[in-house]
Amino acid sequence: MRRAFGLRVRTLREPLALSQEDLADQAGLHRTYVGSVERGERNISLDNIYRLAKALGVHPADLLRDS
Amino acid sequence: MRRAFGLRVRTLREPLALSQEDLADQAGLHRTYVGSVERGERNISLDNIYRLAKALGVHPADLLRDS
Repeated sequence: MRRAFGLRVRTLREPLALSQEDLADQAGLHRTYVGSVERGERNISLDNIYRLAKALGVHPADLLRDS
Repeated sequence: MRRAFGLRVRTLREPLALSQEDLADQAGLHRTYVGSVERGERNISLDNIYRLAKALGVHPADLLRDS
């Protein structure tokens, strides 16, 4: 499930022409954190799910949908 | 958002006639943890969101939808 979440973040990020660093900046997260989330290495918290969703311009529930 | 998440868990739990303790048992979580999640006191992790969703019989994305 962490890998599915990471894939979902990448799938939503790339069409926006955002780098992991851009997304991290907009979400107020560390650049390497976004990379580890996308690789499925993070048990991300609710607060950070909301931060990423806001930066990607989607509802948080959309991040938990399968890509 | 943590409060909204907690309200969503309670809204899905109660119609199933599950106590917080029942839900905790089925999700493999501690009884007091479920109580604190429902009160919006927890920055719950992705893994635990999936555990609660499975125990409630819903898709994890449904837990992030507003009640």
